[in-house]
Amino acid sequence: MSDLYERAPERGPGIRLHLNENTAGCSAAVLEAMRAVTAPEAAAYPEYGATYRSCAVWLGIRDDQLLLTNGLDEGIYTAAVAWLQRNANGEPAEAVVVEPAYALFAASAAVTGARVVHVGPRPDFDFPLEETLAAITPVTRVVFVASPANPSGLLVPAAAIRAVADRLPARAVLFLDEAYVEFASTSFLSDLRSHPNVVLGRTFAKAFGLAAVRAGYLVAAAPLIEQLRSVVLPFSVNVFALAAIRCAVQDAAYVSWYVAQVAESRRRIYAACERLGCAYWTSEANFVLVRVGAGAAALVETLAARGIYVRDRSSMAGCAGCIRITAGLVEHTEACIAALEDTCARA
Amino acid sequence: MSDLYERAPERGPGIRLHLNENTAGCSAAVLEAMRAVTAPEAAAYPEYGATYRSCAVWLGIRDDQLLLTNGLDEGIYTAAVAWLQRNANGEPAEAVVVEPAYALFAASAAVTGARVVHVGPRPDFDFPLEETLAAITPVTRVVFVASPANPSGLLVPAAAIRAVADRLPARAVLFLDEAYVEFASTSFLSDLRSHPNVVLGRTFAKAFGLAAVRAGYLVAAAPLIEQLRSVVLPFSVNVFALAAIRCAVQDAAYVSWYVAQVAESRRRIYAACERLGCAYWTSEANFVLVRVGAGAAALVETLAARGIYVRDRSSMAGCAGCIRITAGLVEHTEACIAALEDTCARA
Repeated sequence: MSDLYERAPERGPGIRLHLNENTAGCSAAVLEAMRAVTAPEAAAYPEYGATYRSCAVWLGIRDDQLLLTNGLDEGIYTAAVAWLQRNANGEPAEAVVVEPAYALFAASAAVTGARVVHVGPRPDFDFPLEETLAAITPVTRVVFVASPANPSGLLVPAAAIRAVADRLPARAVLFLDEAYVEFASTSFLSDLRSHPNVVLGRTFAKAFGLAAVRAGYLVAAAPLIEQLRSVVLPFSVNVFALAAIRCAVQDAAYVSWYVAQVAESRRRIYAACERLGCAYWTSEANFVLVRVGAGAAALVETLAARGIYVRDRSSMAGCAGCIRITAGLVEHTEACIAALEDTCARA
Repeated sequence: MSDLYERAPERGPGIRLHLNENTAGCSAAVLEAMRAVTAPEAAAYPEYGATYRSCAVWLGIRDDQLLLTNGLDEGIYTAAVAWLQRNANGEPAEAVVVEPAYALFAASAAVTGARVVHVGPRPDFDFPLEETLAAITPVTRVVFVASPANPSGLLVPAAAIRAVADRLPARAVLFLDEAYVEFASTSFLSDLRSHPNVVLGRTFAKAFGLAAVRAGYLVAAAPLIEQLRSVVLPFSVNVFALAAIRCAVQDAAYVSWYVAQVAESRRRIYAACERLGCAYWTSEANFVLVRVGAGAAALVETLAARGIYVRDRSSMAGCAGCIRITAGLVEHTEACIAALEDTCARA
């Protein structure tokens, strides 16, 4: 991907709290389902019908409102290919990205030659509704918003999402990234019916622990899904992802357990921040953004040397001096907090 | 994908000779390598370094001449995104497709708004060199050629590939699809050094039996790989594909054994065609194109009712009255031949 997407350096063994992964791994049931894939199944082009039906039933939608993707990344990319290419006059489309945001929004828009309009953050990441509305023009084709947002962890109020959707020109869509929705108190899913220009992006990477398996999905009104399907590869989702999805949607107990771990980890990170005198934001995702100050980059490397990987986010809009810590298993959180407090005590 | 790509209907249990899959499945060693993926590995964004190094060493190239892709399909699609989008004046690029060909060449070009110039077949699928050269214009950006070709199974002479590459305008590439190269007597790989505008497409789907795992790759001069890398998703290859690739490149004995099965199956299909009085083409791939006459579609359905799936190709350019039979394990080939001979005897 372009320079807009900065790949994290490959890390050795250690506690991975830098990529918002599930630090417990996927569930035993899902692992078993993937290991049940046979040699003949590995060799045959996968059939998608059964997995679509399972996933659609689980979500309470119809099959034609669903697109399974090779990770949510492919969902974002496919939206760019479908809606952000130059028109026949060579005019670029416009994409609005509410910053700070996942780098792949702007990177995907850049791939298709779109003009990216960045909406900067307000203090404390309060959702910049008026600024977002003001950024919409007649050639806006996609507005990218994440809720919970990354890296702040904050929810975008449903009223703000509705207001953006209502302001869009015909043929434009609001791409609402809900990658972290399982850790949050609310979703926009039930509002989709009344907002047929919203595409919801979801993933099994985070709460279900399947980042490496590449299993995401989009939910939207059938006409939008049809437009996306017309530009996506026919076999982009692999057979292990299919097996994992069919099992995962039956596996609610695992996600409930993991979400509780994340909630407890967030509380412990907040408490540590208060002891250390660091600002933080109350998160509805599996990570917490913490303002550690000017030494953010050095702190990240010091922790890495101790086998604790967190992410320097200090160069993102509104995030000066900030690191982002994944909140996963409580034991991992405790190890991170101990290293953080020890490092700060020595500083 | 667009209407240009016709997905084969989902089939029930039976002998799958319709999608040029490996009918033996992947090797036991590769299956074991995939089953060794752990729950934490499933949950972490995959690291690609080790797999790139293994694959590059196996091919005798440098890492920067290689792009691993989510199946070869993603390689084709990525070439279209990189090189076939409209320019800043809105002018579409041109893609040349030598027909009959894999439908994804034209479908991918259509996704990015390119104008597709189809070069029709000569009698007996003799490579249409002069017609291909004549189709190249100053706005040609990609020429798609497959060798062995699908569905004919014929190799394109290396001299013809060189002639096409030499005629291309600056900034244009020849995309040479070698999906079936392991079954063939030759490859263009060693010519890449002298033809830095050729991109080779390869896959682990066919000879290695990994169609459902989605593991393909492109080989080209480093500057072309860099252009492709700038538009491809950072995590499009899943962890099972990575494990499979690292094992597969050490697994030469399996491929040798399977290639011998395919060669014997091709010979038996030829012999059956001669007994039945059907024309066929001598194939360097894992399939044989057979001219069965006006009843091709009906024959495919009759065989399907007996649990033998072959592909009707009669609507493709130059393929009137033709079906395509995958040549895999000899026992599967024998079952197909028996059903074919029985059906023809009843007709």
